[in-house]
Amino acid sequence: MAVHETNMRLKLPIVCVILEVILIILFAVLVTYDEDTDAKKWHKELKANRSINYENDFYYRYPSFQDVHVMIFIGFGFLMTFLQRYGFSSVGFNFLIAAFSLQWATLMQGFLHGMHHGKIHVGVESMINADFCTGSVLISFGAVLGKTSPVQLMIMAVFEVTLFAVNEFIILSVLEAKDAGGSMTIHTFGAYFGLVVARVLYRPQLHKSKHKNGSVYHSDLFAMIGTIFLWMFWPSFNSAVTAHGDDQHRTAMNTYYSLASCTLATFGISALVNNEGKLDMVHIQNAALAGGVAVGTAGEMMLTPFGSMIVGFLAGVISTLGFKFLTPILEEKLRIQDTCGVHNLHGMPGILGAIVGAITASAASRDVYGDGMTDVFPEIANNNFTPSGQGVRQAISLAVTLGFAAVGGVIVGFILKMPFLGSPPDTNCFEDNIYWEVPGDEESHQELTPVQQDEVARPLNG
Amino acid sequence: MAVHETNMRLKLPIVCVILEVILIILFAVLVTYDEDTDAKKWHKELKANRSINYENDFYYRYPSFQDVHVMIFIGFGFLMTFLQRYGFSSVGFNFLIAAFSLQWATLMQGFLHGMHHGKIHVGVESMINADFCTGSVLISFGAVLGKTSPVQLMIMAVFEVTLFAVNEFIILSVLEAKDAGGSMTIHTFGAYFGLVVARVLYRPQLHKSKHKNGSVYHSDLFAMIGTIFLWMFWPSFNSAVTAHGDDQHRTAMNTYYSLASCTLATFGISALVNNEGKLDMVHIQNAALAGGVAVGTAGEMMLTPFGSMIVGFLAGVISTLGFKFLTPILEEKLRIQDTCGVHNLHGMPGILGAIVGAITASAASRDVYGDGMTDVFPEIANNNFTPSGQGVRQAISLAVTLGFAAVGGVIVGFILKMPFLGSPPDTNCFEDNIYWEVPGDEESHQELTPVQQDEVARPLNG
Amino acid sequence: MAVHETNMRLKLPIVCVILEVILIILFAVLVTYDEDTDAKKWHKELKANRSINYENDFYYRYPSFQDVHVMIFIGFGFLMTFLQRYGFSSVGFNFLIAAFSLQWATLMQGFLHGMHHGKIHVGVESMINADFCTGSVLISFGAVLGKTSPVQLMIMAVFEVTLFAVNEFIILSVLEAKDAGGSMTIHTFGAYFGLVVARVLYRPQLHKSKHKNGSVYHSDLFAMIGTIFLWMFWPSFNSAVTAHGDDQHRTAMNTYYSLASCTLATFGISALVNNEGKLDMVHIQNAALAGGVAVGTAGEMMLTPFGSMIVGFLAGVISTLGFKFLTPILEEKLRIQDTCGVHNLHGMPGILGAIVGAITASAASRDVYGDGMTDVFPEIANNNFTPSGQGVRQAISLAVTLGFAAVGGVIVGFILKMPFLGSPPDTNCFEDNIYWEVPGDEESHQELTPVQQDEVARPLNG
Repeated sequence: MAVHETNMRLKLPIVCVILEVILIILFAVLVTYDEDTDAKKWHKELKANRSINYENDFYYRYPSFQDVHVMIFIGFGFLMTFLQRYGFSSVGFNFLIAAFSLQWATLMQGFLHGMHHGKIHVGVESMINADFCTGSVLISFGAVLGKTSPVQLMIMAVFEVTLFAVNEFIILSVLEAKDAGGSMTIHTFGAYFGLVVARVLYRPQLHKSKHKNGSVYHSDLFAMIGTIFLWMFWPSFNSAVTAHGDDQHRTAMNTYYSLASCTLATFGISALVNNEGKLDMVHIQNAALAGGVAVGTAGEMMLTPFGSMIVGFLAGVISTLGFKFLTPILEEKLRIQDTCGVHNLHGMPGILGAIVGAITASAASRDVYGDGMTDVFPEIANNNFTPSGQGVRQAISLAVTLGFAAVGGVIVGFILKMPFLGSPPDTNCFEDNIYWEVPGDEESHQELTPVQQDEVARPLNG
Repeated sequence: MAVHETNMRLKLPIVCVILEVILIILFAVLVTYDEDTDAKKWHKELKANRSINYENDFYYRYPSFQDVHVMIFIGFGFLMTFLQRYGFSSVGFNFLIAAFSLQWATLMQGFLHGMHHGKIHVGVESMINADFCTGSVLISFGAVLGKTSPVQLMIMAVFEVTLFAVNEFIILSVLEAKDAGGSMTIHTFGAYFGLVVARVLYRPQLHKSKHKNGSVYHSDLFAMIGTIFLWMFWPSFNSAVTAHGDDQHRTAMNTYYSLASCTLATFGISALVNNEGKLDMVHIQNAALAGGVAVGTAGEMMLTPFGSMIVGFLAGVISTLGFKFLTPILEEKLRIQDTCGVHNLHGMPGILGAIVGAITASAASRDVYGDGMTDVFPEIANNNFTPSGQGVRQAISLAVTLGFAAVGGVIVGFILKMPFLGSPPDTNCFEDNIYWEVPGDEESHQELTPVQQDEVARPLNG
Repeated sequence: MAVHETNMRLKLPIVCVILEVILIILFAVLVTYDEDTDAKKWHKELKANRSINYENDFYYRYPSFQDVHVMIFIGFGFLMTFLQRYGFSSVGFNFLIAAFSLQWATLMQGFLHGMHHGKIHVGVESMINADFCTGSVLISFGAVLGKTSPVQLMIMAVFEVTLFAVNEFIILSVLEAKDAGGSMTIHTFGAYFGLVVARVLYRPQLHKSKHKNGSVYHSDLFAMIGTIFLWMFWPSFNSAVTAHGDDQHRTAMNTYYSLASCTLATFGISALVNNEGKLDMVHIQNAALAGGVAVGTAGEMMLTPFGSMIVGFLAGVISTLGFKFLTPILEEKLRIQDTCGVHNLHGMPGILGAIVGAITASAASRDVYGDGMTDVFPEIANNNFTPSGQGVRQAISLAVTLGFAAVGGVIVGFILKMPFLGSPPDTNCFEDNIYWEVPGDEESHQELTPVQQDEVARPLNG
C-alpha cells in the first residue's frame, strides 16, 4: 500500500520520540523536586519548624489537582466525542497532546516562574499549573477538531504551550493581574489562538465532509460524560491555585453558583431559539459550562453568590445565542470553521470573565476584604496599587492575551500548513479511520455470517 | 408548524428565567458567605484563634462534596440512561432540575437551619446539604421518568425541595433524630413522594409507549456508569456531613461494607429468580446500591462492620425481590408506574435504613461509644434522652417522613396534572425527540448516500 | 427449558450466599474498628494527646482511597468492555468479584498484618489495601475474560486473594522489601497468576468464538473511559499507602511523569508497527498505562522526574511491542490465550518495575534521602541493611512473587477445570447472553413493528 501524506508510520513516531527525548534531557538538567516533595528537604523542613507531615501542601492541593486532571483527560476528551466518527481521535489525540503538553508546560512555566538557583522546582502546584496550560491547548484543539493530523497537533502544542507561558508570565508576574481560574490566560487565549489557527487553515471544500460533521445518538451521550465532569469539577479548577483558606472556599462556591445559574439560562435559551421549542444537545453540552469560564477571574474575589449567579446567567445566554447565531456567521463571513464552537464556550465567556474581573477588582475595598485583601490583591493591600489601578491592569491583561493569541495563532497556523504534516483531505475530515484502525459496527455484524464477521471485527491481538 | 402542547418554546424559557431571577433576587437579599468563606471574617478568625489556613473546613468537607456532586450529576443522570431513547432527557433533565434544586435548596434549608441575623450563611456544608436535597428530587424524577415534561419537573422540584426542607427540619431539629446519610430524609421521602406523584399521574394507556420502555445493549452500559459511580462514592455521601473524625471515618467504612455485601446478595438473588439463571441488568444497576441507602441512618453509629454487612445483604435481597415481584403488582394493582423502580432502590431500603437506625440508636451505650457519644447522640450524652427515647424519635421520624411524602405527593401530583404543562402523550413517552433535537443513528447512515446523511446528521452549528 | 451446565440459577446464588455468610461470621468474630474509626478509642486518643479531629488519618488517606476505588470499579470494569458483546459481563463480573474480594482481602490481609489482641483492626488504610488486593484479582480476570463463568471467577478470587496476602506478607514483612504501588505484589502477581490459569484453561477450539473476540466502535469508547480513569488516578494508586508527607507527594509526581512519557512512547510505537501507520486502540487503551505499573515499586524512592520519564518510556515501548509481537506467540506457541493482554500491561511492566525498584534501592544514599531515609528505607536508616542488601531483597521478592503466581496459578487453574462450574462452551465465549438477559439492539428495532419490539426490548419490570 502506498504511503499517503496522511500516513503516520514514520512521522508520528519521530515526533513523539524526539519530543520525549528532548523533554527527558531537559528534565534531567533542569528539574528537581521542590521542598514538599524531596525526601531530604522536607525532613529538614519538618525538623526546623517542628511541623508534622499532615502540613505537607500535598494534602491541600492534590484533591484539587485530581479534579483538574479529570477535567483535562475525561472532560475535554469526552466532550469532543460528540462527532459520530471521530471519537477515537477526540479522546485519543486529546490524551496524546495533553500528555505531551503537561510535560512541556512544566518546563516552560518553570523557566518563567519556578527557577531557584538554576533549577525548576516541581511539586503539586506545578502539576496543577501544567494541567491548566494543557487545558488551553485542548481548547484550541476544539477549534480545529477533525481537520488536523496528530503531528500537526503536537507541533501546535509545542508552540502554544510556549506562548501560553510567556503570556501568563506577563499577565501574572509583570502586570500583577489576578486570574486564578484562567478566564484570560486559559480560556480567552486558548479560544482565540485556536480560532486564528482555524482561520489560517480554512478549508473552502470542507462541505465534502459535512455528513460526518455532526453527532449520532450515542456519541452525544458520550459527550455528556465530558460535559458533566467538566461542570462538576469546575469549582475545583477555578480554586485549585488560589491562596489557601477562604480564597479556595469562596472561589469554589462562586463557581458552583455561577454554573447552576448558567445551566438554567442555557436550557431556557436553547428552547427559545428553536422553532419547535426543542432543546439542542450542542447547547447543553457546551453553553451550560460557560458559567465556569466567566468566573475564572473574579471567582476568588468577593463576587458574592448572587453576583456569581448573574455572571453565570449572562454567560449561558451569550454562549447559547453564540452557537445559534454567531457560529454560522463566523464560518460564512469570517471563514472560521470552529468545530466545537470554542468561541461560544471559551472565547466570549472568557472575555466576559476578564471584564467581570476588572470591574470586581476596581470595586475592591478594605471594608469588604478586611485582612483577606493580602491574599486576593496583595498589591492593593500593600498600597502599591489602587483598586482602580488593579482594574486597569486586569483590562490590559485581556488586551495582551488577545494580542498574543492573534499573533501566535497566525504564525502557528502557517507553520501547520506545511504539507508534509499529514493533514486529512477535505473529503475525509471528521473521520477516525484515516489515523486509526477502526473496527466495524456491532450492527453491521448482525446480518453477517461468522466468517464475514471475522473480517469486520478488529482482531484483538493484531 | 403548529404549536403543540408539548412545545417548550415559551414555557421552558419562562419557567427557567423566572425561577432564576427569583433565585438571584432572594440570594441578593438573604445570602452571605459564612465565616470560612468570607475574606474579612476568616482572616479575623485566623487572627483571633492563631489558626492557620489549613484548618479551614473546606479541606475536610470539599472532597466529600465533590464525591456527592458526582453522584448527583453523573450517578443519577447516567443511571437513568438505561432507556433506549431517553438518554438525552435522563441526563439532561437530571442536569436541569439538579442545577435548579441546589440553588432553591440553599434558600429553603437556609431559612430553616442557617439564618444568622437575618442572613443565610453559606459554605461548603450548605453546598453538600443542597446536593442532598437535590438527590431527593432526582429520586422522585426516577419514578416519573419518561412521562413528564421538563416544565412539570421544574415545578415538582419547586415544591418538593420546599417540603423536603420542612420535613428535614422537623426530623433533625425538632425531633432531634439522626439521619446523616438520609435514609429517611432523602431516600424514603424522595421515593414515596415520587411514587405518590406517579400514582396521581397514572396513565392507563401507557402500554402505547411500551416498546420504548426498556433498554438496549449500549444504554445499559451507559446506565452502569451511573451505578458504579453511585456505588463507589456512597461512602462519601453517607459521611459527608457527620461530625469530623471517627464519625466520618466510621460512616464511610460501614457504607463500604454494606455495599459490598449487598452486591453479592443482588447477584445471587438475581440469578435465582430467573428461569434460566440469567442475571438481570435492572437488578445489578439498582439493587446493588440498596446497601448504601439502608445504612444511611445507622452508618454513623457503632453498627460494626459485620452489622453493616448484614444490613446490606438484607437490602440487596429485598430490593432484588422487589424488582422481580413487587413492581408488577404496584403497576397492576396500585396503578403506580414506577419507571426506575425507585420503590425497590430507595423506598423499601430507606424504610429498612430507618428501622435499623432506630434499633441501633436504642442500643447505644456509653460503654460502646465512650466520649464519642457527644458527636453521635448529643442528647443522650447530655442525658436529655435515653437511648430508647432516641430510638422512638427515630421511629417517629420515619412516620413523619412518610406522611409528608404522601400528602405532598398527592398535592403536587394534582398540580402537575394541569394540562398546559406539556406532558407527553401516551404514545410518545420514553422518547427524547419530543423535547430534543435528536440526531440520526450512526447505523442508519451507513446505507445512505452522503446527501441523505446530511439530512439525518444533526448539523453542528444549527 | 433444560438446565444447562452454564445455568447459574442455583450455582451462583449458592456461591454468593455461602461466601457472604462466611464473611459475615468471620467479621463478627474477628474484625473491629481501629483507633481512628471507633467512637470510644478515638475520643480517648483525642483527650490523651490533646489532638483535634482534623488529625484523623481519614482526611489524609480517604481521597486516595476514593481514587483507588474508582480505578478498581470504573477503571478495570470499563477497560474490559472493549469486547463487542461482553460489556455486561466485563463491568458486571468485575463488580461482583471486586465486591467479594475486598471483603475477603480484609480478612486475609488482617490475619497476616493487622491482628491486635486477636482482632483485625480496620480503617481507611485497610480499605485501600483490600482494594489493592482486589486489583490483583481483576488483572487475572483480564487474562481469562470471556472464557469463565462467574462461579469460576468467584472461586478464583477466593484462592487468589489468599495467595496474594501470603505473598505480600513474605515480601513486605519477612523480606522487608518496598513495593508501595505493587509492581510486584499486585501487577506481576496478578498477571502471571492469571496467565498460568489461562494456560491451564487453554481452549484449542476458541477460534469458534473468534468473531466475538474483538471490539466494535462504541465498545472501544467505553473502554477508553476505563483507560483514562486508570491513567488519571494512578498517581493516587501508587501513593495511597506510602508514608505521609514527601513520600506521598513524590510518589504521585513520579507516577504522573512516568505515565505522561509512556503515553508518547505508546502512540509513537503504535503507529510505527502498523503497516499503514494507523494507531491501534488496543495499544492506547493498555500500553499507555504501563508507565503506572513500572513505577509501582520505585515511585516512592528518589527516582527523580526524568528517571520516572525514562522508566515510563521504556514501559510504553515494551508494552506496545508486546501487544504486537508477543501476544500472538504466547497464544500459538505457549497456548496462553490472554484476552486483555495482561502480560503486556501488567506482566512485563511489573517485572520492569521490580527491577527498577531493586536498582533504585541499591543506589539509595543518605546524601540524597537525608532524614527522609527513615520513611522510605527504614532498615537502611537503622543500619540493618546496606542499600545493596535492600536491592537484593527487592530482587528476591520478584522471584518469590513469580513462584507464588506460577504454582498458585497451576493449582487454581486445575480447580477451575471442574466441569460443574459452568464454563461457557467454545462456541459461546465472549458473549454476554449466556449469563445475562440481554436486550436487543436499538438498531434492529427500527425496522420492527411495535409489537415485535415488545418482544425484543427488555421489559423493565421483568
